[in-house]
Amino acid sequence: MQLLRWIPLATLAGILAGTASALLLVSLNLATTLRENHPWLLYLLAPAGLVVGLLYRHFGASVEAGSNLIIDEIHNPQAVIPLRMTPLILLGTFITHLFGGSAGREGTAIQTGASLADQLSIPLRLAPANRRILLMAGVSAGFASVFGTPLAGAVFGLEVLAIGSLSYEALFPCFIAAFAGDLTTRAWHVHHTLYQVSSVPAVDVRGILSSIAAGIVFGLIAMAFARTTHAVSAFAKRHIAYAPLRPFAGGILVTLAVLAIGTTRYIGLGIPTIVASFQTRLPIYDFAAKFLFTALTLGTGFKGGEVTPLFFIGSTLGNALSNLLPLPPSLLAGMGFVAVFAGAANTPIASTLMAVELFGAEAGAYAGIACVVSYLFSGHSGIYHAQRIGNSKY
Amino acid sequence: MQLLRWIPLATLAGILAGTASALLLVSLNLATTLRENHPWLLYLLAPAGLVVGLLYRHFGASVEAGSNLIIDEIHNPQAVIPLRMTPLILLGTFITHLFGGSAGREGTAIQTGASLADQLSIPLRLAPANRRILLMAGVSAGFASVFGTPLAGAVFGLEVLAIGSLSYEALFPCFIAAFAGDLTTRAWHVHHTLYQVSSVPAVDVRGILSSIAAGIVFGLIAMAFARTTHAVSAFAKRHIAYAPLRPFAGGILVTLAVLAIGTTRYIGLGIPTIVASFQTRLPIYDFAAKFLFTALTLGTGFKGGEVTPLFFIGSTLGNALSNLLPLPPSLLAGMGFVAVFAGAANTPIASTLMAVELFGAEAGAYAGIACVVSYLFSGHSGIYHAQRIGNSKY
Repeated sequence: MQLLRWIPLATLAGILAGTASALLLVSLNLATTLRENHPWLLYLLAPAGLVVGLLYRHFGASVEAGSNLIIDEIHNPQAVIPLRMTPLILLGTFITHLFGGSAGREGTAIQTGASLADQLSIPLRLAPANRRILLMAGVSAGFASVFGTPLAGAVFGLEVLAIGSLSYEALFPCFIAAFAGDLTTRAWHVHHTLYQVSSVPAVDVRGILSSIAAGIVFGLIAMAFARTTHAVSAFAKRHIAYAPLRPFAGGILVTLAVLAIGTTRYIGLGIPTIVASFQTRLPIYDFAAKFLFTALTLGTGFKGGEVTPLFFIGSTLGNALSNLLPLPPSLLAGMGFVAVFAGAANTPIASTLMAVELFGAEAGAYAGIACVVSYLFSGHSGIYHAQRIGNSKY
Repeated sequence: MQLLRWIPLATLAGILAGTASALLLVSLNLATTLRENHPWLLYLLAPAGLVVGLLYRHFGASVEAGSNLIIDEIHNPQAVIPLRMTPLILLGTFITHLFGGSAGREGTAIQTGASLADQLSIPLRLAPANRRILLMAGVSAGFASVFGTPLAGAVFGLEVLAIGSLSYEALFPCFIAAFAGDLTTRAWHVHHTLYQVSSVPAVDVRGILSSIAAGIVFGLIAMAFARTTHAVSAFAKRHIAYAPLRPFAGGILVTLAVLAIGTTRYIGLGIPTIVASFQTRLPIYDFAAKFLFTALTLGTGFKGGEVTPLFFIGSTLGNALSNLLPLPPSLLAGMGFVAVFAGAANTPIASTLMAVELFGAEAGAYAGIACVVSYLFSGHSGIYHAQRIGNSKY
């Protein structure tokens, strides 16, 4: 009966996370619309980066580690996550998107979901073991609500902590929080983009081998992305001592890159291109361009998440692979969407569930193989470096 | 690159398991048809039980532990599973169903899948660590192919070993074997029953609370089933010293019970009633009758599996719960189908994936909640007593 007490607690965590995700999604829609209507905003990306850097330097030192701080706290509970994580990451993400950084939103949703949930542990005087569970529930609720995928969100909160193993301690609170979070975001009348995998052939040997081949490519790109982003970050730290100047420099480079190639296709969330990757053949270099823009944006210290860019990279890469593999472009786009993420976040089961929730059960079978293979080929250092190794991959 | 060597190995395990599952499914169709056309076969159930008992006493002592032997070998590899496990369990299951025992088939598929896979480890001189992985792949392939659900099968082979935790060591081989097994069974032109959840309302608070309530009932029934079957078995062992007489006695009781209530509805696999539970309202006691017939059949030593009867118990119980809960009968039938199994086998994630594969992603959301809650309320001793406890449920 102990368990039932998690119903109100996880529900509350879900309501908080879902509300924060609704606010985030509305603010990102606003930022995207403003940026598209006022292209000159891009010229302010460098100073905007400086503002984000200063914000975190003066108010956010304790929460700068972001998603990794959450994962560390779950592994080893020390102190309640400061509430300021929520406004800072929401504001930082809004600024990043308003002025044209290439970034995502799941990092933001995880941070708001977990930091808000953790505030409940103060009045309730939760023991560390229960704080951990509540934090995991907050992560699940944040992920579920920002993407509209409760099953994937529920498992993500369990799976992201360690590579190669999954513990069910927080299974029930994560499920409740994920569904409560998703319902809350929808109750705020915030809708999620729909992606349509238009044709799924019956699974056969050729389909399985193609999924394995695609999964290998997705995994290698996921590994390259995580390493490149870390390398950009390490390079910036080595050469730019004053932290707020790093996103300033990053902003200059992103702005120059946009001007050099003459398109804004690779900045922001990139939802229109993701949607297009399910509908039509796209340039085969789309994934590479998004890869570089995102590594530059996030590596230099802008805020947001990695996952929506990973969806972009994966779905356009999948689309490109349809030139080589005998599967429909929209199916490969769907497989890449989840599988590059599976490799980079080391979350194959959550990613498979996400494919099922977004694209249906038939596409989910192909996506499942691609996610597992991508996970195996993406190495042991993903986008969350606080993740521990539960079981080595090989 | 080590990993890629699992492709041929797991594929071979899948082909063997899928072929055995095809043979099993064809033989069970034959047994069911014969029994329905020749109702007098039921009068031979007791002597048939004696035959099964004698078979295992004289030829099957080394494999009598069945699915639990497989799980034990995976935890602690000692010696290759004797090949005879496969013909004995196929024959034992055929006899059980031909003469009217109430049993399933997943136990059979797991045993044929794993024991056939294990034969590969002799010529290949696999180290114990690799034998374990191959056994898990065999379990996945058997489960996937007998039910036509590759994602659920893949995860089942990982999840069934321990309660409350899941390790990814064998993730890739289990996926490959599961898909290869499923494709093989289909290549033998063996088809699976289709179940149709006819209406799924959008998830809302009432739906979530109803799913939790249903999940509690499903979990308690799952616990009661596992305990009753174990209790029947312990009782039979205490009072009937000569093992082959136990299924003989069980056969007499099942035969008398059928004659007393005047229907064959609760013997065999019971597929027609499961299908009906998705289509129309059924008597509310159906689940209880199937529960007793199955506990009596399996507890006294007939062969087969627990899972199809659990699907029957769950889907008819779900159907009955639609009198109390504000969800459609066919949706509750689908939820019960997977959730009683989730509780009894302690496999909530595989069961959720099964719901998605059989009933679609929308029903999967409800089923996911029901499976997690059922898992939490089913206690720590499920139908596989060799299962270890990775993490206590509460």
